[in-house]
Amino acid sequence: MNQRTTWVNQTAFETAKALQNRSLSAYDYTMSCLEHIERLEPDVHAFAYLNKEGALARARSLDTQAIQGGLHGLTVGIKDVFETWDMPTQGGSEVFKNNQAHQDAACIASLRAAGAVMLGKTITTELATFPTNGTRNPLNLAHTPGGSSSGSAAAVAAKMVSFATGTQTMGSTIRPCGYCGVTGFKPSYNLIPKRGVWPNADSVDTVGLVARDVRDVAFFASEMVGYPALRITQDMDQDLAKPTIGMCRSHEWEKADEHIHAAFENSKKIFIDQGARVIDIVLPHDFQGLLQAHRTIVNFEMSRGFMDILKRHASLMRPELLARTLEGLKVTPEDYQAAQRLARQCRQGLDAVMGECHVLFTPAATGEAPEGQAYSGDTTMNQVWTLMHGPCISVTGGHGPHGLPLAMQVVGRIDDDASTLKAGHWIDTVLKRQLKS
Amino acid sequence: MNQRTTWVNQTAFETAKALQNRSLSAYDYTMSCLEHIERLEPDVHAFAYLNKEGALARARSLDTQAIQGGLHGLTVGIKDVFETWDMPTQGGSEVFKNNQAHQDAACIASLRAAGAVMLGKTITTELATFPTNGTRNPLNLAHTPGGSSSGSAAAVAAKMVSFATGTQTMGSTIRPCGYCGVTGFKPSYNLIPKRGVWPNADSVDTVGLVARDVRDVAFFASEMVGYPALRITQDMDQDLAKPTIGMCRSHEWEKADEHIHAAFENSKKIFIDQGARVIDIVLPHDFQGLLQAHRTIVNFEMSRGFMDILKRHASLMRPELLARTLEGLKVTPEDYQAAQRLARQCRQGLDAVMGECHVLFTPAATGEAPEGQAYSGDTTMNQVWTLMHGPCISVTGGHGPHGLPLAMQVVGRIDDDASTLKAGHWIDTVLKRQLKS
Repeated sequence: MNQRTTWVNQTAFETAKALQNRSLSAYDYTMSCLEHIERLEPDVHAFAYLNKEGALARARSLDTQAIQGGLHGLTVGIKDVFETWDMPTQGGSEVFKNNQAHQDAACIASLRAAGAVMLGKTITTELATFPTNGTRNPLNLAHTPGGSSSGSAAAVAAKMVSFATGTQTMGSTIRPCGYCGVTGFKPSYNLIPKRGVWPNADSVDTVGLVARDVRDVAFFASEMVGYPALRITQDMDQDLAKPTIGMCRSHEWEKADEHIHAAFENSKKIFIDQGARVIDIVLPHDFQGLLQAHRTIVNFEMSRGFMDILKRHASLMRPELLARTLEGLKVTPEDYQAAQRLARQCRQGLDAVMGECHVLFTPAATGEAPEGQAYSGDTTMNQVWTLMHGPCISVTGGHGPHGLPLAMQVVGRIDDDASTLKAGHWIDTVLKRQLKS
Repeated sequence: MNQRTTWVNQTAFETAKALQNRSLSAYDYTMSCLEHIERLEPDVHAFAYLNKEGALARARSLDTQAIQGGLHGLTVGIKDVFETWDMPTQGGSEVFKNNQAHQDAACIASLRAAGAVMLGKTITTELATFPTNGTRNPLNLAHTPGGSSSGSAAAVAAKMVSFATGTQTMGSTIRPCGYCGVTGFKPSYNLIPKRGVWPNADSVDTVGLVARDVRDVAFFASEMVGYPALRITQDMDQDLAKPTIGMCRSHEWEKADEHIHAAFENSKKIFIDQGARVIDIVLPHDFQGLLQAHRTIVNFEMSRGFMDILKRHASLMRPELLARTLEGLKVTPEDYQAAQRLARQCRQGLDAVMGECHVLFTPAATGEAPEGQAYSGDTTMNQVWTLMHGPCISVTGGHGPHGLPLAMQVVGRIDDDASTLKAGHWIDTVLKRQLKS
């Protein structure tokens, strides 16, 4: 393995240092990622469009310029529902085959401004819903990487890119990242602008970020938003305060399998062993309605949001998505508005429920990534937390019978992303250390 | 005046009856609107693009088909930030000159499905912000129609169309409708899907509707959303319950002029005379921070949302918008997230503040529409209510020294659009009757 290819094994945080001090050129790093993609892509199918020439030209140009920003020379895979002026945006849908947008999504423009190199568009399920598009889980090619940010999670897990972008309406960032053993971060609702990102359900759609670990994802988010406080600079063993963690089984607990349950309990032991304060949190009774409220809101908004596609291009939708869309049109506005009222009420109540906890810890999936490519997995453990609008971070709480990650998530208070990332970093680090040993 | 042109003087509610029973053809009605536009457009400048041939072809086609829906044959002006597959979408910006979208905004597709005839794209201020694009107030051509939904408010006020669409981020539907003496309706946040509508600030952007009176706007909204309960079917004098109205001077009261103040007090007298229960509502102390919170949120989100335009097309932005955008980038994420927290807290508190009131009644502008075309007016009286996410309806509370409307608004509980429209209809009707007499 030559010098070039070893860089793909480093975290973005480490690679950034070398790019910033010019001991690594943007060209060499981009080339190392592209070579790595070339080797693995035939198996993984992470990319809907690879912009090899464009990326190399951009990297060459960066090497001749002053440092552009914190992401100078780092590589990004862009979920194929973010518009880009230099690559097609096809959304995993026949309706948008070869569609070329005129603009960059706002947050992609921010990444470019910070010096990132866009390698390509990553595969999404159809219109970021559920029909899959052939991406495989790099940890085990016989399993799904999850969806809808399938290609983004897989590309980061396969070390093809420093970072990738995702979106989450149901569980589309946290779940695939959990399945692939990488770090998904769904920030607080609307912290990242959605201009140029295709909507599914306005009330819950959130731009998500994918990276190798929490420190990397915090770095990525900090640069994308221009939010230095998100960055994790503390040395883990010296400066980082141990969080108070709310162990939250949630009303959906029984939907998760025994492996998830065991990993959750084992994680709790690890947190206590490592000196964190741990509190069992029982969600109030009215939170029971949130799973259905999320379904109601998403079905109502998404079906109406697809109206142009439905009226002009229904024959290009896959039958299962068409059927789901038509079903969604049956949700009454009265039920929709009642669901919104419940969501608001519980959002407001969550702060008191969390009490002294910095974050909650709760399952992020019902089990390991399912076998096969047709089904992207169960979103049940994600929906309530997407509806709550607060930050979520995927972490690995153990490994299942196939050796695949058992996904947990760290859930924070709405608009308290910095504290959540710090607590998430502590949790991610101790879990990785203890599960390895 | 021939038979054709008299139709433009009818409400959409009345015209719809004639279109539904085929006593009026879609072609004749469309032609009457187009002829009316031809007469008035040189003065008013409501349209960025007029689709005369397309509209007539569509109307002819509707006349040969079964009734398509509740809007069969009614005409619509579309604010030029809603994408349409058959007309350019230019957003009042040099950046998007002759821009042709591939799709209909979702809510526009819903209008077409309900049988509406799209006459054209109405003029917006630059990117739906504040630099104006030459539209005049049909009530007095020397005055602004307000913005950013300038053309939509003007087109409805000039009786060029049955309805028009708008958006509201600051006060962009309610204020221009108030200035032009027509009915603007900003529904609850996210009730109408935003897919295909250009975003400004995701956390507050709301699709707005413009019509001649509250009954018309309720009809339009009911068809756009597929929400029959929004429709007002009660006979005003027999069945409609008299609302309990919260008279709300708001923390911004002193920003409004003495004419607005007098119209507010006079409206209160009218409500009492007409038998409504009236309660004076004082907003809690923490609501004082909402105006600044709204500014913080909009400046943060909008400046970052314009990142691609800023990076690739800054020279095509008007200097005042460019300056405002660069200023917005200075808003810190910490201040932004604190503003979001305050907004959530007050949103939650508003229900208790309203108590027994069905709706609040509060000024919608600081005075009459200002003279001249360069300045679209002061948004101060709208921002807090946009941030609150609940339904707002513009009504005329009197007339100022230039004879122009003094705009008030009816504000409802979030996700309680049906009751708000009913109360708004009562208020609109009694004010119109009493102010005429």
